Amino acid sequence: MSQTPTNKWKVIKFDEDSLNEIEEEVAAEFPLTVMVNGEEFATMVCTPENLHELVVGFLASEGLIRSYSEIKSVHIDDSLGFAHVMLYRELDEDRYDHSKRFIGSCCGKSRQFYFKSDVQTAKTVMSKMSLSIEQGISLMKLLEEQSNHFQRTGGVHNAALCTSDGIEAIRTDIGRHNALDKIYGYALQNRVRLADKLIVFSGRISSEVLLKISKIGVGILLSKSAPTDLALKLADDLGITAIGFARKRKMNVYTHPERIAEAKKYLT
Amino acid sequence: MSQTPTNKWKVIKFDEDSLNEIEEEVAAEFPLTVMVNGEEFATMVCTPENLHELVVGFLASEGLIRSYSEIKSVHIDDSLGFAHVMLYRELDEDRYDHSKRFIGSCCGKSRQFYFKSDVQTAKTVMSKMSLSIEQGISLMKLLEEQSNHFQRTGGVHNAALCTSDGIEAIRTDIGRHNALDKIYGYALQNRVRLADKLIVFSGRISSEVLLKISKIGVGILLSKSAPTDLALKLADDLGITAIGFARKRKMNVYTHPERIAEAKKYLT
Repeated sequence: MSQTPTNKWKVIKFDEDSLNEIEEEVAAEFPLTVMVNGEEFATMVCTPENLHELVVGFLASEGLIRSYSEIKSVHIDDSLGFAHVMLYRELDEDRYDHSKRFIGSCCGKSRQFYFKSDVQTAKTVMSKMSLSIEQGISLMKLLEEQSNHFQRTGGVHNAALCTSDGIEAIRTDIGRHNALDKIYGYALQNRVRLADKLIVFSGRISSEVLLKISKIGVGILLSKSAPTDLALKLADDLGITAIGFARKRKMNVYTHPERIAEAKKYLT
Repeated sequence: MSQTPTNKWKVIKFDEDSLNEIEEEVAAEFPLTVMVNGEEFATMVCTPENLHELVVGFLASEGLIRSYSEIKSVHIDDSLGFAHVMLYRELDEDRYDHSKRFIGSCCGKSRQFYFKSDVQTAKTVMSKMSLSIEQGISLMKLLEEQSNHFQRTGGVHNAALCTSDGIEAIRTDIGRHNALDKIYGYALQNRVRLADKLIVFSGRISSEVLLKISKIGVGILLSKSAPTDLALKLADDLGITAIGFARKRKMNVYTHPERIAEAKKYLT
């Protein structure tokens, strides 16, 4: 049985003064258990599409792989909800130790940043990429035009890997982190050069999102939503240009404006 | 040092054709480690207000307590980000075993529902409460009027415990689950009768949110956002009236319409 990113549900729809029973599409929420070298590693809930990329990006986010070539095979069993991953190397004992946990639709491992010692996996981003405000406005418009699930069902997030001129790949998931992991997986699998790329994103900029951006290694995050203070402190530390509230002809540049043509002279 | 729910950040603001450097408020993201009987139980990130309620609701969601009277003391140290909880009883060994994990701003324990045996903690809701569509519209309007952080900073969620006529308590958090845990904590602490209450919510209806509603024991969830298919299956199973996309004079009733005056005759 193959999974679909949306499913039908009967709904009693109230709209102004009428009440009707119709069938509508709702976002699918799919549990996927990731097995690594034959052992259970984690279970996440996700939108069931681009699962190969999701698993690759997730393993990279978790620090299990650094490049796609470390993976021997990935087999996705989407009827039972399993991803069977074989790596060329064996996993370190210590890595395995605290790894069997369930990851919700909106969480990544980076949450441990302030508590564990994985400060090392969050890289300072050296990208010299630059973007103009007009380019940012156009890219957010493209993201909205191309994110079809969101328009149909609501409740999903979109992430796009972009050059300053257009979208290279766009991915959707009910989990903000999963959408980014799918992009990460895509980039690893296709050995995409990231120095001239940015990520355009529908979701909120939390500390976890920001850390994932730094792991992916992209210099600019352009989001439609609000940031948190912790995310901005991290963006400042890790050299990432964080832009929020990018809606129509508005946006807020919070950190590292040196990559934004018109904003360079500020915050110095 | 006392924490605040928002903090100032310098921003380069682009609005139509002007660019200005101003100071704006952004939502605070605060790491809080919960210690139970002297041992580390979990760390979450949250909006630093109503932390006592958050901790009480979180412990109930996690199944550690069933009533407020099981708690001997809660001491919140909000300068270091610790909550020290003493329970009257000792924790079971097995409960402790898989408990030391980090909870992100948007995740609760219920994610294990489909994998572990905690189906027992998710209760079928027997509430006989009823609501009219007009009452639902009014309550969502009240939620929006009273959710001040959201208007100021974006990126936070609001949950309100309501009767059919008005709001009894409203709580805010950067984490959807935390906002609900604060409401849960409030209800336990004040021994609120839940049979005539509903929850009005700004966030998406995921399986985790739905399970939390069932644990709190409220019969109607009225949300501004979209549901997932898994959440709707659970709502159907657990006897919860799930209403989504409640915006202005629109809303979708997905499950158990018997509690909604005008919708009773549908989906039978």
